[in-house]
Amino acid sequence: MNTNNEKRATLAAIVTIGDELLIGQVVDTNSAWIAQKLNLLGIPVYRMTSVSDAPNEIAAVIDELRPVCDLIIITGGLGPTRDDKTKQTLCNYFNTHLVQNDEVLAHIERLLAKRNIPMNELNVAQAMLPETCEVLFNPLGTAAGMWLEKDNTVVVSMPGVPFEMKAIVEQNLIPKLKKNFKTQAIVHKTIITSGIAESVLAQQLNEWETSLPEHIHLAYLPSPGQVRLRLSAYGNDEHELQNEIEKISFKLNDIIPANIVAWQDEAIEVTIGKLLKDKNLTVGFAESCTGGNVAHLITSVAGSSAYFKGSVVVYSNELKNKLLNVPFEVLNQYGAVSKETVEILAKEARNLLNTDFAIAISGVAGPDGGTAEKPVGTVWFALASEKEVVAEIAHFGDDRERNIQKASIFALNLLRKHL
Amino acid sequence: MNTNNEKRATLAAIVTIGDELLIGQVVDTNSAWIAQKLNLLGIPVYRMTSVSDAPNEIAAVIDELRPVCDLIIITGGLGPTRDDKTKQTLCNYFNTHLVQNDEVLAHIERLLAKRNIPMNELNVAQAMLPETCEVLFNPLGTAAGMWLEKDNTVVVSMPGVPFEMKAIVEQNLIPKLKKNFKTQAIVHKTIITSGIAESVLAQQLNEWETSLPEHIHLAYLPSPGQVRLRLSAYGNDEHELQNEIEKISFKLNDIIPANIVAWQDEAIEVTIGKLLKDKNLTVGFAESCTGGNVAHLITSVAGSSAYFKGSVVVYSNELKNKLLNVPFEVLNQYGAVSKETVEILAKEARNLLNTDFAIAISGVAGPDGGTAEKPVGTVWFALASEKEVVAEIAHFGDDRERNIQKASIFALNLLRKHL
Repeated sequence: MNTNNEKRATLAAIVTIGDELLIGQVVDTNSAWIAQKLNLLGIPVYRMTSVSDAPNEIAAVIDELRPVCDLIIITGGLGPTRDDKTKQTLCNYFNTHLVQNDEVLAHIERLLAKRNIPMNELNVAQAMLPETCEVLFNPLGTAAGMWLEKDNTVVVSMPGVPFEMKAIVEQNLIPKLKKNFKTQAIVHKTIITSGIAESVLAQQLNEWETSLPEHIHLAYLPSPGQVRLRLSAYGNDEHELQNEIEKISFKLNDIIPANIVAWQDEAIEVTIGKLLKDKNLTVGFAESCTGGNVAHLITSVAGSSAYFKGSVVVYSNELKNKLLNVPFEVLNQYGAVSKETVEILAKEARNLLNTDFAIAISGVAGPDGGTAEKPVGTVWFALASEKEVVAEIAHFGDDRERNIQKASIFALNLLRKHL
Repeated sequence: MNTNNEKRATLAAIVTIGDELLIGQVVDTNSAWIAQKLNLLGIPVYRMTSVSDAPNEIAAVIDELRPVCDLIIITGGLGPTRDDKTKQTLCNYFNTHLVQNDEVLAHIERLLAKRNIPMNELNVAQAMLPETCEVLFNPLGTAAGMWLEKDNTVVVSMPGVPFEMKAIVEQNLIPKLKKNFKTQAIVHKTIITSGIAESVLAQQLNEWETSLPEHIHLAYLPSPGQVRLRLSAYGNDEHELQNEIEKISFKLNDIIPANIVAWQDEAIEVTIGKLLKDKNLTVGFAESCTGGNVAHLITSVAGSSAYFKGSVVVYSNELKNKLLNVPFEVLNQYGAVSKETVEILAKEARNLLNTDFAIAISGVAGPDGGTAEKPVGTVWFALASEKEVVAEIAHFGDDRERNIQKASIFALNLLRKHL
């Protein structure tokens, strides 16, 4: 083990294990989460790799990464069940063997007792750990993390269940990494833009982009309804980089003032939550095609009850009429997806929910229900405030999931523009 | 190019390119999606790798994978902006150079005109493609896919924007793969279980699991509120494997009959949708702590308007009273998170929404709002039907996001048990 005085410079790799990844049954979210944490420590990630849980594959990927990386973080393959082969593979690789860890065994016993689950031999086996490893205690689960070393490479193995892995990283891995590794300064700044296509944005930013210093990199990250600009600065002094990147990004205010949604990488529901809270205002929704997703986004933010009291999902014409007084004549004459309908929905929702703002969304999410006049992807929005009701239309694409997502972001952005 | 008569046996690798992946800013969902598609073709995936967009890294990973894989599928690094280096890297790697593709240029022109975006030199550059590549046409975007070959390895490069990549794969890549590669039969079957811990499940299934033939593999895949069992059968005859795997999985009916939610890997909202539709029944929700997520899940299924008319999100006590007539005395005496409150919410929601069933959910999602008596994670549920109102309580954990997710699944499972 290195002492504080001779910390190593670091390049990390992340490995996720599991056939469920390779057949696409499970999306690997662990790698991105771990990469974020390493980034905050200034430890760059060289690669992410997903491999099968076959023992020779796990050993092969460690072999490949060791010449390049000082730190290999592995998740997956540590459950109680027999499809897990990682622990034995690591023992073979590090020339050690499994021994019972009494502390871990006691923890497993306590944990299972608390959940009223009987202890069985598979759980007992989970307390068997490589003799030479340092245990990274798992406060939320039965599979412990392990820290192993070979020829100056550290291999960390953790269970794949995300919330258990996260608890191990936060509580036990990060402090240990800080103690053992040298870290370089990396500062990122992300600016969220909307209402401008990636290629147009790139052309408008061309001069500014060309003037960036060599140690600052720019990336364009498009997603439904927005393009994020990410600046990354590499150097020694975090504080200096922070100042530099702020100064450079601030120039965007002169180039694309109307397109900047946020000066940091935060979801629009977070941005809006802050604005509403600051101004002591409330919002509610009348959702048709978004089916509750806008309310879900708003309430995914802790503390949202300060500005969100409730919402209605009026999927049928019957409920548009019964809950929000849209006359059947309006629904018949103009349709549920119309300026007329959303304006009434927004105005009535504002009254019903007793909020400062109400947003109504009604559209054709697809895949069915489109017409020549209103094809799939057509969505009407209205915002009602004390002083006005405004409506907007948008034309999205053919994909139901994306249409719901885009319409939700559009609705929140409509609110943002009025805050 | 190989002819139909001498198709190759295949092992594939998936590579995703982008610094945004390595810093954890974006979760790679492309790899899992592509892996699913390859799996359906019987093309196993050897590895998934995420690398930086540095040219030497892209070349290095192709070099490493070529000895093992016949097919390397790359996504990312093909946008109009200057952070994209993939195309030039591929040209260098395959000893070719960029030439203008008139068909692609015309497509880009049409696409931008339709969106009212002016064509600029960055867009023109997108029509420059490696001379020796076969173009995989991108119907939804400006970055074309490419099919390149070297020493019997096929390298496919596609843009990273998921919906564009998906369109290229569906329309152009899959037909080309079918023509060029031999495929082996892989059959998966996933059984969804709930209400039983992974280790207990493993013990109960021990004898059955031990009796599985060698070419059939079992994996346990735990997620919030459920454990999925995945059987994978490898062989030559798909039909035979299908029969075998059905027969084997059917035995689970004798071992864990009460814990089986579904006999296929489908989201519970899909299972419920089918049940409601078959029985011609409708459902609505009164959501507090889940904030609209249950309605969002239900409406994420196309055709859900057949059984879902609408829903209310009553986040505040004021709206629980105003919209669903929960007396303030009840809210004050028992609290918003109580059997008494959810029973009234469910009953009143059923009346208001005019449905066969209504489910009410009220709990402490966290991170704040917990008390000694009702800590964070405490959630009350009620189901109202024509003949009864039943309530259940659940105790989840400390994490807001997981609590919302678990409570949503629990609510849907409560409904399933009554269908």
